[in-house]
Amino acid sequence: MAFEINNHFLNDFKALIDANNHKEVSTILKDLHYADIADIVEDLDFNRALFVLNLLDSETTADILTELDDDTRERVLKSLSSKEIAQNIEELETDDAADIIGELSEKKKQEVISHIEDVEHAKDIVDLLRYEEDTAGGLMAKEFIEVNENWTNLKCVKEMRRQAQELEKVHTIYVVDDDDKLKGILSLKSLLTTSAKTPVKEIFDPKVESVKVDDKGEDIAQIMQKYDLVVLPVVDDLGVLVGQITIDDVVDFITEEAEKDYQMAAGISEDIDTDDTVFKMTRARLPWLLIGMISGTFAATIIVDFQTVMKTAPALVMFIPLINSSAGNVGVQSSAIVVQSIANKSFKGKLITHILKQLLVGLLNGAVLASIVFGLSQFIFHTNLNISFTIAIALTTVIINAAVIGTVVPIVLNKFKIDPAVATGPFVTTSNDIFGILIYFMVAKMMLGF
Amino acid sequence: MAFEINNHFLNDFKALIDANNHKEVSTILKDLHYADIADIVEDLDFNRALFVLNLLDSETTADILTELDDDTRERVLKSLSSKEIAQNIEELETDDAADIIGELSEKKKQEVISHIEDVEHAKDIVDLLRYEEDTAGGLMAKEFIEVNENWTNLKCVKEMRRQAQELEKVHTIYVVDDDDKLKGILSLKSLLTTSAKTPVKEIFDPKVESVKVDDKGEDIAQIMQKYDLVVLPVVDDLGVLVGQITIDDVVDFITEEAEKDYQMAAGISEDIDTDDTVFKMTRARLPWLLIGMISGTFAATIIVDFQTVMKTAPALVMFIPLINSSAGNVGVQSSAIVVQSIANKSFKGKLITHILKQLLVGLLNGAVLASIVFGLSQFIFHTNLNISFTIAIALTTVIINAAVIGTVVPIVLNKFKIDPAVATGPFVTTSNDIFGILIYFMVAKMMLGF
Repeated sequence: MAFEINNHFLNDFKALIDANNHKEVSTILKDLHYADIADIVEDLDFNRALFVLNLLDSETTADILTELDDDTRERVLKSLSSKEIAQNIEELETDDAADIIGELSEKKKQEVISHIEDVEHAKDIVDLLRYEEDTAGGLMAKEFIEVNENWTNLKCVKEMRRQAQELEKVHTIYVVDDDDKLKGILSLKSLLTTSAKTPVKEIFDPKVESVKVDDKGEDIAQIMQKYDLVVLPVVDDLGVLVGQITIDDVVDFITEEAEKDYQMAAGISEDIDTDDTVFKMTRARLPWLLIGMISGTFAATIIVDFQTVMKTAPALVMFIPLINSSAGNVGVQSSAIVVQSIANKSFKGKLITHILKQLLVGLLNGAVLASIVFGLSQFIFHTNLNISFTIAIALTTVIINAAVIGTVVPIVLNKFKIDPAVATGPFVTTSNDIFGILIYFMVAKMMLGF
Repeated sequence: MAFEINNHFLNDFKALIDANNHKEVSTILKDLHYADIADIVEDLDFNRALFVLNLLDSETTADILTELDDDTRERVLKSLSSKEIAQNIEELETDDAADIIGELSEKKKQEVISHIEDVEHAKDIVDLLRYEEDTAGGLMAKEFIEVNENWTNLKCVKEMRRQAQELEKVHTIYVVDDDDKLKGILSLKSLLTTSAKTPVKEIFDPKVESVKVDDKGEDIAQIMQKYDLVVLPVVDDLGVLVGQITIDDVVDFITEEAEKDYQMAAGISEDIDTDDTVFKMTRARLPWLLIGMISGTFAATIIVDFQTVMKTAPALVMFIPLINSSAGNVGVQSSAIVVQSIANKSFKGKLITHILKQLLVGLLNGAVLASIVFGLSQFIFHTNLNISFTIAIALTTVIINAAVIGTVVPIVLNKFKIDPAVATGPFVTTSNDIFGILIYFMVAKMMLGF
């Protein structure tokens, strides 16, 4: 049962802070998980937030730092001295520590590192700072348990006991050779269920998935999902075990990627949320709106070109919005499915098969919509039969075309190694806006005999 | 390094199957992870797939069954007798077993269960079948290690050893009281680093998150993400420990939800992929296209109403597509951000604050686009100054209106407990299509002095 912050709680809590009631506030905090305290801190104005943080020990403060949103964390870090940051960092696992230090200015970074007392810890953190954020190196921690393949079961337990002192959680025991090269894993089960004298060599499992330090985040997410892994060892180019990625970091990565994809699909070019500034929001939306502008302008040119047709059949103007929205919707639908199956690597089959399939889907959807439009045009708007028929045929053609464009664009982009998730939207929308209106008038022109 | 299936491999592999080369095929399979074999099986036609499955032991077949896509799994299950399914199921953990049995017909379900030899296992599976798929009960497995709070460290290790025989992976050791009520967890670290005589009572951690059997999947995903959990214990109404959810099942859940959200944002009403039939694809798209039809028809009515305005200023027609797409894009952008922050529970602040913010964002974006349109209208299309000015003002008004509608609709839907992720799209798109064109012509009518 997750703790929920409500307004009632928040108001009482603020009142206690304003009354300078250290004791009561501490009592409340004592029973909360650090992730919940982080949520509360984000809901407080900055001075009250600092009041809360000052009441906590450095371990809890450190954990809270890892949970805060970027803006709040930045403000908190600015209010702390390098020495204070170092004390907090000291309590964190290397990956979280590196994430926080990585956000500091170059100067403050050096200062903080020089204040970390545990030299080994500092070295590990500096090592992690070398890697790009979204690679195995950037996601991994240096904390893990390793045992040598030549040891006995008994020696393992002793070693694990020693190494475990330094760890918060033990997930997996890695087996390495004398050169620290990863050989496999030792399951807790085999450790528990074999005798103390059994050599590790005989009981470890050599089938182990691993990734290299520079492998990409999305590939790592896919491997961990595919093989249902909770932890994934990271090796360097020589096969030496250098770190471990745990699933919770990857879950965060998956969620962030999904949110980005969702925003991209909605035409937002930066990762934003409802808290962001008006300026940032405006900037994130503008690129997409400008792209819409381009197609809108082309559409305007097309309308100018077909003025004679429109004068003869003014009813055509009436259905411009419908043509536009149908072309747009069909294009987005078709491309979303292809983009998604390319992203989750389930896409297969030949281009021509997909095109034929989309032709059919477009034809079926088009036929349904065209019948309705024909009815509307005839019986609601009392357009003449010829023109109603023209509009219905034109709409079907537009829909088929949109379905095909929506399917072909992401496949072609992918062939040219351009990320279809990013590039498909602008391409499909622009071309459908333009071709939609063009096809509509061209079909009309032909059918009405110009 | 994940195994990648390429065409070259697949062709060689098919040739070996067609040559009836049991030995070679078996050798290849032996080195592969079951998730990879599942991928290969999905790429083969059905008879070749059965050839492969027949070469595998029941443990591997069972694991593969859990990984196959729904269609292939259904076909494979149909080709197996109830007894064969029971033998495979016997090898699986209860949650995976229940998922597979849950897909069978009522009759076959009973048959399979009656063929499971391990009565305890069968009872656990039947128990799990009672729960809804997307609840804690539906996601949990009955396999976990529990120790009594009154035991000593030494007795724990003995008990764990006994219980571990039955388990594939050990993640966490749960501590319960004499009534099997969950009291806390025992970390491997404390077990390893304290003496054998220490009572469990003194070393276990009583701070443990748990969920109830009927808690919802999305809440579970959020708790596991928020508290960085790898496993989450499930209790019944009395607090008795009944199961455990592991993160890999939740990751699958998160990914599926994200895919659904993405498709929903693209106007697709059922979960489909590129493999699905033309009929299913058509059906999944039609609802959204019909909604577009409604707004398109309204727009047509509006255009009919404003025919006098258009006759006086035919240039207005030219920019109908631009007005449409701008209103649509802005609406989708605004609503996506709100829907997302409501979904990940980061949404806060008052309705009026958000409306004012969106007014500003709309004004800024509108101003940029309106200036461009003004320029285009003046210098490219040589429209008269008055009309260019009218179009620019109308566009800005349309954009501000779309931004506000896009923001208000999801907030209001959420207040009325209607899932904004599902309902926002249709509401926002329809109203923006209609209001966009209405505002455009109304502003034009006023400014051009009708």
